[in-house]
Amino acid sequence: MFISRWVIMFAVGIGTALLAAGVQISVEIIAHEKFHLIQKFLDKCSVEGCTLFTPVIIWIAINFFISSLGAALVTYVQPVAAGSGIPFIKSYLNGVRIPGLLTLQAFVAKTLGVILSILGGLACGKEGPMAHSGGIMAAGLAKGRMRLRKNKEIKFYDAFRSDHEIRDFVAAGAASGVSAAFGAPVGGTLFSVEEAASFWNTELVWKVFFSAMVACFSTNFLLSAFEGHPTHLSSPGLVRFNTFQNLSFDLIEILVFLVMAVIGGLAGALFVVLNYKLTVFRKNYIRKKWLKVLESGIVSVASAIIAFLLMYGVNECTDVKPYSDHAITSQMFCKDKSHNSMSTLFLTTPEGCLKALLHDPHDAYGVVSLTVFIIVFFLLGVWTYGLSVSSGVFIPSLAIGAAWGRLIGIGVVELFPHHDVGKYALIGAASMLGGILRTTISLTVIIVECTGDISFGLPIMLTLMISKWVGDFFTTGLYDMNIEVSGIPLLSSEPPILCEHVKASEVMSQPVLALQTQEKVGTIIEILDSETYGGYPVVDVRKKDQHYVVGKLRGIILKNQLLVLLEKKIFAPEGLLPPTSNIQMKDFDNPYPIGQRLQLKDITVTEEEKEYILDLKPYMNISPYTVGPSFSMPRVFRLFRGLGLRHLIIINDKFEVIGMVTRKDLAKFRSESKRGMLKVEHLTIQDV
Amino acid sequence: MFISRWVIMFAVGIGTALLAAGVQISVEIIAHEKFHLIQKFLDKCSVEGCTLFTPVIIWIAINFFISSLGAALVTYVQPVAAGSGIPFIKSYLNGVRIPGLLTLQAFVAKTLGVILSILGGLACGKEGPMAHSGGIMAAGLAKGRMRLRKNKEIKFYDAFRSDHEIRDFVAAGAASGVSAAFGAPVGGTLFSVEEAASFWNTELVWKVFFSAMVACFSTNFLLSAFEGHPTHLSSPGLVRFNTFQNLSFDLIEILVFLVMAVIGGLAGALFVVLNYKLTVFRKNYIRKKWLKVLESGIVSVASAIIAFLLMYGVNECTDVKPYSDHAITSQMFCKDKSHNSMSTLFLTTPEGCLKALLHDPHDAYGVVSLTVFIIVFFLLGVWTYGLSVSSGVFIPSLAIGAAWGRLIGIGVVELFPHHDVGKYALIGAASMLGGILRTTISLTVIIVECTGDISFGLPIMLTLMISKWVGDFFTTGLYDMNIEVSGIPLLSSEPPILCEHVKASEVMSQPVLALQTQEKVGTIIEILDSETYGGYPVVDVRKKDQHYVVGKLRGIILKNQLLVLLEKKIFAPEGLLPPTSNIQMKDFDNPYPIGQRLQLKDITVTEEEKEYILDLKPYMNISPYTVGPSFSMPRVFRLFRGLGLRHLIIINDKFEVIGMVTRKDLAKFRSESKRGMLKVEHLTIQDV
Repeated sequence: MFISRWVIMFAVGIGTALLAAGVQISVEIIAHEKFHLIQKFLDKCSVEGCTLFTPVIIWIAINFFISSLGAALVTYVQPVAAGSGIPFIKSYLNGVRIPGLLTLQAFVAKTLGVILSILGGLACGKEGPMAHSGGIMAAGLAKGRMRLRKNKEIKFYDAFRSDHEIRDFVAAGAASGVSAAFGAPVGGTLFSVEEAASFWNTELVWKVFFSAMVACFSTNFLLSAFEGHPTHLSSPGLVRFNTFQNLSFDLIEILVFLVMAVIGGLAGALFVVLNYKLTVFRKNYIRKKWLKVLESGIVSVASAIIAFLLMYGVNECTDVKPYSDHAITSQMFCKDKSHNSMSTLFLTTPEGCLKALLHDPHDAYGVVSLTVFIIVFFLLGVWTYGLSVSSGVFIPSLAIGAAWGRLIGIGVVELFPHHDVGKYALIGAASMLGGILRTTISLTVIIVECTGDISFGLPIMLTLMISKWVGDFFTTGLYDMNIEVSGIPLLSSEPPILCEHVKASEVMSQPVLALQTQEKVGTIIEILDSETYGGYPVVDVRKKDQHYVVGKLRGIILKNQLLVLLEKKIFAPEGLLPPTSNIQMKDFDNPYPIGQRLQLKDITVTEEEKEYILDLKPYMNISPYTVGPSFSMPRVFRLFRGLGLRHLIIINDKFEVIGMVTRKDLAKFRSESKRGMLKVEHLTIQDV
Repeated sequence: MFISRWVIMFAVGIGTALLAAGVQISVEIIAHEKFHLIQKFLDKCSVEGCTLFTPVIIWIAINFFISSLGAALVTYVQPVAAGSGIPFIKSYLNGVRIPGLLTLQAFVAKTLGVILSILGGLACGKEGPMAHSGGIMAAGLAKGRMRLRKNKEIKFYDAFRSDHEIRDFVAAGAASGVSAAFGAPVGGTLFSVEEAASFWNTELVWKVFFSAMVACFSTNFLLSAFEGHPTHLSSPGLVRFNTFQNLSFDLIEILVFLVMAVIGGLAGALFVVLNYKLTVFRKNYIRKKWLKVLESGIVSVASAIIAFLLMYGVNECTDVKPYSDHAITSQMFCKDKSHNSMSTLFLTTPEGCLKALLHDPHDAYGVVSLTVFIIVFFLLGVWTYGLSVSSGVFIPSLAIGAAWGRLIGIGVVELFPHHDVGKYALIGAASMLGGILRTTISLTVIIVECTGDISFGLPIMLTLMISKWVGDFFTTGLYDMNIEVSGIPLLSSEPPILCEHVKASEVMSQPVLALQTQEKVGTIIEILDSETYGGYPVVDVRKKDQHYVVGKLRGIILKNQLLVLLEKKIFAPEGLLPPTSNIQMKDFDNPYPIGQRLQLKDITVTEEEKEYILDLKPYMNISPYTVGPSFSMPRVFRLFRGLGLRHLIIINDKFEVIGMVTRKDLAKFRSESKRGMLKVEHLTIQDV
C-alpha cells in the first residue's frame, strides 16, 4: 500500500503533465491556424479594399460553431464540468459530495470543452479546468477504474476505495494541474492546501508536493521536446510569464504598487458583483439546456464582433515589433511595415494576449487602444465566466490587470523614462487576480514561480494583500460567491464572526432520529427513508416518541453501514442470532465509485423481515465525538474543520442524546461582509 | 489589534533582517581578517623556511580564546542558547514550555555566541541560531518588553499577552530567521509550518509568510547596500548557493542521484548515531560548567590543528583559480602561482568552504584532498554539534555532502567529460542534509530557492525523499533525537504506530485530582502544591477519597486561574459572598513574560482563610473537551494535535470524571524504528 500510493502519486503527476501538454499543444496549433486564416482574409481585404465582410463572417462562424460545440458537450454530457471547476474541487476537498464531479464524462467535457472554449474565442483560460481534470484523473488512477455510465465501468486494478484516501489523491491531482499549468509546483501544492485542507498533514502534503513536482517537470520536458530540445527544459508550465528583463524597483515605486493594488481590489469586487447579478439572472431565466448552449454561442459571436469592431474602430497603427516571433499581427488599414496594434491582442489566445501585454515594448499599444481594450475585455470576462462551458478565469483576469497595469506603466514611463512598463503590467495582473479570487499564499507563490524572481516577491505579496483587503470589504471572492450561490454547505476556514456567543444547543438539529442498539428492520428502513443524515446515534431506549428515541448514547452508526447490513440481511427474528458469517470488514468499505453508492431503493426486504431485529452493537462506533449543549459555536466549528468531522452528537449531563450537529447545520451560519457592513446570515441550504 | 499585528509582523521581518545582516557582515569581516593573518604567517614561513610553529600557535590561540568565550557566554548566561535552537523552537511551537527560551539572555548568548563560534573555527553554521534569534526577537516585539532578569524588565508598549498569540509571532520569527538565512521566504514559512504547526491556519500562515518575505527582502537590501549597490538586490540570503552555470541533466543521471541519496541517508544516520552516543556521554560526564567551556575550547583547538595538519600533510598543489575572488589561499610549499588546495577549504568560514565546494572548477581539489577532508570534517561536525556553544548544523552538513558529492562528480566527469561537478556537489549536499535532518517539504523548497532553479527541483526532491527513507530506517532525525534525549514531551505529527488498539482509558492519568464547584481554599492550595497539572476538572461531589473527588463533570479550571483567584482573594467564609469587584477578565490573561509566572509560593493565605470557600462556578470553563474511555489512542492524539489541546477529560457514561489525558501522557508513547525494527516505547518524561 505504501509503495502503490507513491506509484499512483507519480502516475498522477505524469498523467496531468501529458494532459496539460496535450491541451496546450493542440490549442496552440489550432488557434494559430485559425487566427492566421482570419489575418489572411483581413489583410487581403484591407489591401484590396473589400468590405471586410468575408473575414468577419468567417470569424463569427468559426467561433459560433466551436463554442456551441463546447457548450453542448458540457451541458448535455456533464453540467458539473461547467466553469473553472475550482469551486467544486474546493468543496469536494472540504468534504462535500458533488454528484458526477469525478466521472469520466466530467473529464471529457472538461478537457475537450476547454480546448473548444478557447478555440471558440471566449475570454477564458485553461488553468482552472486543468486543476479539475487533474483531480478527476487522480481519482480514476486511485480507484483503478472509470465509471462509464450507470452500472458500467472499466476496471484496471484494485486500489484505494475509501473516500478519505481518494480525496487525498484528488488533492494531489488538483495541485498537479495547477503546477503543470503555471510551472509552479510549490504554488500548486499550497493551492491545494490553502483551498482545501483543514489541517496540515506533513505526510500528505509531501506526497502532493511530489506529484506536483513530477507534473511540473514532465510538462516542462514534454513541451520542450515539442519545441525540439527536450533537455533544455525551458517551458516549466503552460503559462509562464517568461523572463522579465528588469524587475528591480525603487522603494518609492511601492507606493504606486499600493495604489494599483487598491484599484485591483475595487475592480475585482466590481467583477464579482456583476458576475453575481448575471449568475442570479442565469439561474432564473436561462434554465433550458438549448438556451445555455445558445448563450455560449452568442458570447463567442459577440467576442468576435467586438474584437473586429475594436480593430476596425480604434485603428491605431504601430511599427513596434511584438515581443514574440509567433505573434500574429494584421496590417488592416495601416501603412506598410506597421500593423494594427489591437490585432496583436485579439488575433491570439487569451494567454498570448496576456504575454503580449506583459512583455511587448512600452510603445506597442497606445493609450486609447488599451483603455478600450480594458473596458471591453473586462465586460467580456464577466459575461464569459459562468457560461455553461469549461473555462478558467485566471488568464482573463490577469490579462485585464496587465492591460490597466500597462496603462499606468505608460504614465510612469512618461514621467521617469528609465522605467519599464512590464513591471507595472505584472503588478496590475497580480492585483486584478487577487481582487477577483482573494487567494493569498498560493497566488503569491504561483506568481513568483511564474516570474522566477524571488526579489520581486515582496511587491507581489503586498499587492495581493491590499487587493484582497479592499475586495473583501465589498464582496466575497469569485469562487466563494459561486459556492454560495450554488448552495453548497462549505465550511469556511475560520468560524464565522459574531458567533462567539452562539451555543451548540442553538446550532444542533433536534429532535434527533436515533436508533436503539437492537432495532427493528422496519424502523431502520423508515428512518433511512425519511431523513438524509449520514449517521445516526445509537441509544438505549428510555422513552419513545415515534422515532425520536431518547436515551443514553451508546455509539453511532453510519447510513452506509446500515445499508450494507440490510443488504447482507444481518438480521433475525427476535431472540435468534443473525447470520454473521457472510459479512466482513471490507464489505463496509465503499465498493462503488463516487456517484454510485448503495441506495435504499436497491434493497428489498420482505414484510416479514421488517419485524426482524438488527443488532447494531457489533458494528457501531462506540466512541463518537460528543460535546455538551453549552459548547460554543466557534469551538464546534474548529472541531469540524480540524478533525474533518461529519457528525457531532450533543449530549446532556446524563449522557443522553439531545441533538446532533452536521456540516449543514454549521454551513447555515455564514457571516457576510457586503459594502463594508457585517452581518450573520442564516442560509437555507439546498440539497446538492 | 488587527493593524498592530501586521505592524509587528513587519517589524519582525525587518528586525530579523537587521540581525542577519549584522551577523553576516561582522563574521565576514572579522573571519577574513583572521584567516588573512594566518595565511600571511603561513606563507612567510614556507617561503623563508621557518618551522610553521608561529602560525599554528597563533591559529590555536585565536581559536581557543574566541570559542571559549563563546562557550562561556552560552554556558554561564543562558544554557538554553546552546546548539542550533531549532529543536527547542520546534518544541515550543508545539506547545511545550521551555524556561528561558525567549529571554534577552538567550538572545544575546545565541547571537553573539554564534559569531564567536564561527570565528573560533568550529565546524558550524549560523542558520539554525538565526531561527532561534528571530523567534526571540519576535516574542520580544510582540510583548513589547524584554525581561532582563528576575522582576526586572524594560517595557516599551502594551501589546500581546496570551501564550497563544506570542506563539504565532515566534513562528513568524523563526520563519523570518530561516528566510533571511537562506533567502528563502517560502521555504522559511514552510519550515515553520512543517516543524511546528498542528493545523493549517491560512490567516496565520499568510502573516508568517509576510514576515518571512519582508525579512528576505530586507536582508537582500542590506547586504546589497553593504556591497555598495542597494537596488541591485543580488544577495537574497546569507547563504545563497549562487547561480550554477548549468543545472540541466539527462534522465539517466537521476540514477546516479538516487545512489547518492542512499549514501546521504546512510551517512546521515551514522552522523545521528555517533552524535547520540556523544550526547549521552556528555550528559553523564561533562556536567560541570567549566568542563563544557573547556570542551568547546578543545574542539576548536583540534579543528585548527587538524586543518593545519591536513594542509601540511596532504600538500596537494593546484593552480586553478578559486571560484570567488575573496577566497584566501595559501601557497605553503607549493611553487609560485599555485597554492595548497586544502587551504581554500580551511582558511575560510564553513559557509565559504561550502560555496567553494559547490562552485570551484572540477580540478580545483584532488581526490586525496577531498577524501581526507570528508572524513575529517564529518567527525568534526559530529563532535561540534551538541557542544555548549551556539551553533547550527545546516552548513557543516551541506559542506560534508558537497565534498563527497564533488568526489562522485569527479568520477562522473572522468567518464563523461562534458558534465559539471557542481551539480553533483549540490545533490550530495542536499542528500547529506536530508539524511541528518529528515525534513522534507521545507528543505526541498529552501534548496530550490537557494539555487533559484525550479527545473532542478525534482532531482532535489527525489534525493531528499530517498535519503529520508534510508535514514529513517535506522534512526530518527538529529533534531528529534535531541528532543528525545532531553525528555521534552513533544507530540509527533502522526499518532505513534502500533497504537491503534490502545484506548484512552489506558493512556489517561487516574485517579484525577478534581475540585468541587465550591471548594475550600486550603484544599486548593494542597492540590496545587502536590501536582503539576495545568488544569483541574471541577465536579459535583459524590464520594471523596482524600482529594480524589469523584462526581459529575461541571467544568475545568486552569492552574493559572486558580492562582489569580487566590492572589486576589476571591473567597469568603462559608455562606458569605466573596468580593468580586476587584477581579476582571483581563486579570486572567497572563501578565508576565514567559518564564516568570505567578507562583504558588508568591501567594500568602492565612490559616483562617484556608477554611474559606472559593466558588469556582463563575470562572471555570463549563464546556471542556471530553471523550469516553473507549476512545482510541490515535483519535485522542489527533484531538491534541488538531486542536492544540492540553487537557482532555475522560468521562464515563454517567458523566463522571474517571481520568484525564495531558500531553505528557501521550508523549510517553513513542514508536521508534531502530535498525529497521519497530517498537513502541513507553518513555519516562522528565519535567522540563
